Amino acid sequence: MTNYERFLSRAAGQMQESAIRRMGTVLAQKRDIISFAPGYPAAETFPWHEFQEIARELLAGNDASVLQYGPTRGFRPLLEAIAGIMGQRGAPTAAERLLITTGSQQGLDLVARVLVDPGDVVLVELPTYTGALTAFRNVQAQMIGVPQDADGIDVNALDEIHADLVARGRRVRFLYVVPNFQNPTGLLVGLGKRRALLDWAARRDMLIVEDDPYRELFFEDSTTEADVRPIKADDTEARVIYLSSFSKTLAPGFRVAWIDAPAPLASKLEMAKQSEDLLTGSLDQRVIYEACRRGILQRQLPLLRRHYQQKRDVMVEALHGAFGNDISWPMPRGGFFLWATMPPGIDAERMIPRAVDHGVIYVAGDAFFVDGSGQNLVRLSFSAPAPERIREGVARFAATVREEQQANITSRAAGESAPPRPATR
Amino acid sequence: MTNYERFLSRAAGQMQESAIRRMGTVLAQKRDIISFAPGYPAAETFPWHEFQEIARELLAGNDASVLQYGPTRGFRPLLEAIAGIMGQRGAPTAAERLLITTGSQQGLDLVARVLVDPGDVVLVELPTYTGALTAFRNVQAQMIGVPQDADGIDVNALDEIHADLVARGRRVRFLYVVPNFQNPTGLLVGLGKRRALLDWAARRDMLIVEDDPYRELFFEDSTTEADVRPIKADDTEARVIYLSSFSKTLAPGFRVAWIDAPAPLASKLEMAKQSEDLLTGSLDQRVIYEACRRGILQRQLPLLRRHYQQKRDVMVEALHGAFGNDISWPMPRGGFFLWATMPPGIDAERMIPRAVDHGVIYVAGDAFFVDGSGQNLVRLSFSAPAPERIREGVARFAATVREEQQANITSRAAGESAPPRPATR
Repeated sequence: MTNYERFLSRAAGQMQESAIRRMGTVLAQKRDIISFAPGYPAAETFPWHEFQEIARELLAGNDASVLQYGPTRGFRPLLEAIAGIMGQRGAPTAAERLLITTGSQQGLDLVARVLVDPGDVVLVELPTYTGALTAFRNVQAQMIGVPQDADGIDVNALDEIHADLVARGRRVRFLYVVPNFQNPTGLLVGLGKRRALLDWAARRDMLIVEDDPYRELFFEDSTTEADVRPIKADDTEARVIYLSSFSKTLAPGFRVAWIDAPAPLASKLEMAKQSEDLLTGSLDQRVIYEACRRGILQRQLPLLRRHYQQKRDVMVEALHGAFGNDISWPMPRGGFFLWATMPPGIDAERMIPRAVDHGVIYVAGDAFFVDGSGQNLVRLSFSAPAPERIREGVARFAATVREEQQANITSRAAGESAPPRPATR
Repeated sequence: MTNYERFLSRAAGQMQESAIRRMGTVLAQKRDIISFAPGYPAAETFPWHEFQEIARELLAGNDASVLQYGPTRGFRPLLEAIAGIMGQRGAPTAAERLLITTGSQQGLDLVARVLVDPGDVVLVELPTYTGALTAFRNVQAQMIGVPQDADGIDVNALDEIHADLVARGRRVRFLYVVPNFQNPTGLLVGLGKRRALLDWAARRDMLIVEDDPYRELFFEDSTTEADVRPIKADDTEARVIYLSSFSKTLAPGFRVAWIDAPAPLASKLEMAKQSEDLLTGSLDQRVIYEACRRGILQRQLPLLRRHYQQKRDVMVEALHGAFGNDISWPMPRGGFFLWATMPPGIDAERMIPRAVDHGVIYVAGDAFFVDGSGQNLVRLSFSAPAPERIREGVARFAATVREEQQANITSRAAGESAPPRPATR
């Protein structure tokens, strides 16, 4: 018995390996690869010593709940600490609207399961975060893309696309949007557009799923806290489901994130989480709570803003030096990503083996598009490598691109057609 | 906008709160409740000091991967340690068949998503674990129950039920079975039956999902390691998906469990997990790995067997003293649960408020049955409370039952019908 295909659900039949995760596999296999691929936070910024001290206290054995099963909603003091964080972000909430999730990835998955039936439409940005696409695909949603301007999603196009879908009898479930330093583009949605999105949701009776993992990582040379105000902050009609995380501000290995949703939806999301994993890790929740309570999170934020801004500067300077005006990008004002348009004729997905040969990896842009476009784009994460590795990685990347361009010229001169792109990703 | 019903998926519309989790909520609200409800392991048995030392070393900051994102499959050395555990259990495997899950609950959820389409049939025991029912319900499976004998699932009835479903054109996806110290009955499936299940699966071209969290907790007064041999150990046709966990042997707060599945299914389960939470907590996986590597798990097992056997003895003695022959149960030969048949006329679900008044909780039996039966049964977990609390809890429970019987007599004498049972659970 070797063929298990006939046992698979329709959803499983459609499941695909994540392009970002696939790059992680490459990374694990080959030595001396400089990775601009997964958006890993910089581990040297983690407050290791503080975590060590917190874990020592928590594991002393005088509080059984540290390692026991606990409520699906989450550790109550952590829920209250998160309510405090939401208040600081201008979006006051209450514990009955909050749910701890095992990373924001679980939040996206829960939202998809609770709101989407097979064949329903989910509106997403062109491009958008692949992990969200995975979650929506796994409930058999159809994703329809909405183009972006320099200040994020095009609200007029959004309304036209929505109206067209409704006219064709499609059931549109929600808009998924990453307003701050979007993955993969780094774009920031303008404040006016945020209000326009709420107006649109009210007019069209829609929900908005606002995914906000990067908002604390704004770069102070160009951006202030006012620029990253959550859409949720002005959500007077309770149409926004807001997701955020400690993965980018404390550490991703703890897998602690949250959803803020209208209470009836929070209750359904909790039931869905009961099925998915019963609860988020107890020790993880306790460590994160202590990091909030002791002010460690607050102390980290300005350090992280400076850290990632410096790394962005290093990458930008290296790219300018290596490419001049041959490639371009919107300047990241926060977050982890630089989204670069390659010289004409470069297919970023097809170039990956050459990049691996040169010892550098990135994520090819088409993974982020639901309309099959994006071949000429790459997402470069500047968050994890040290500055000297960023410089070296950009040099390797530039050598890769030049070699690819030369190979394209040679094969065109020989009258060859381009080699086929991989059939599946 | 207060009505979110119209935004819910069909799956969400059917989601229910878990009866066990609901008892956890009661527990969190009321003081001095003795809980026989959730199957919590005994926190005083956790190797706190060892965990503290491991965490101190891991969080020293010289290994970034301890708090970083990592592979969805799991931390490779932990996968290899689990392959070693599977070998000790008589079921050798390899890393490409293994997947780390965020508790076995996630394993059940992933299996359901990868194998079940809405309306498909999943065969389960009567009764069976409610968390599995939740996972199967959330993919809109129809669960059909198979009765049990004293040595577990009735294989003849299984075959008849399966044949009848197939004759009626139903698509049956798999059998879900907990062979060792089943939740909730405590039953052990006989070794002959295990082989008969494999024969049945081969004859009917079916898969078996074997959920095995309790196997290490056999009670040495009556049971040996030979009695808990996994069905998977004799799975020559690769028809068994095997789930197990460290939650009952190390600590549940870490949320580390595993699936052993045929490689093509393991690959699909991994893709489903990418959507659900990207990876299981990095620190959690590392602590569990160190507990395996340093021999802590092996040292714990004989201690845990004695610990839970003693608690079972305390509960059994207290129940005999309080009830004489008025209630009965199959003697648990391992695990956490005693499954008691109440005196005639007792409706365990309806009795819950009275039990809470008396300061004791349990899980009403009907939560474990997919056919609406089980009103006269209760699941009593003896695993968590200290011996003196077990004795006191049984006294409270006996007082509850006597009062309920008296109330039944009184209301029958007055010609009243029984009060209505709660409409939803």
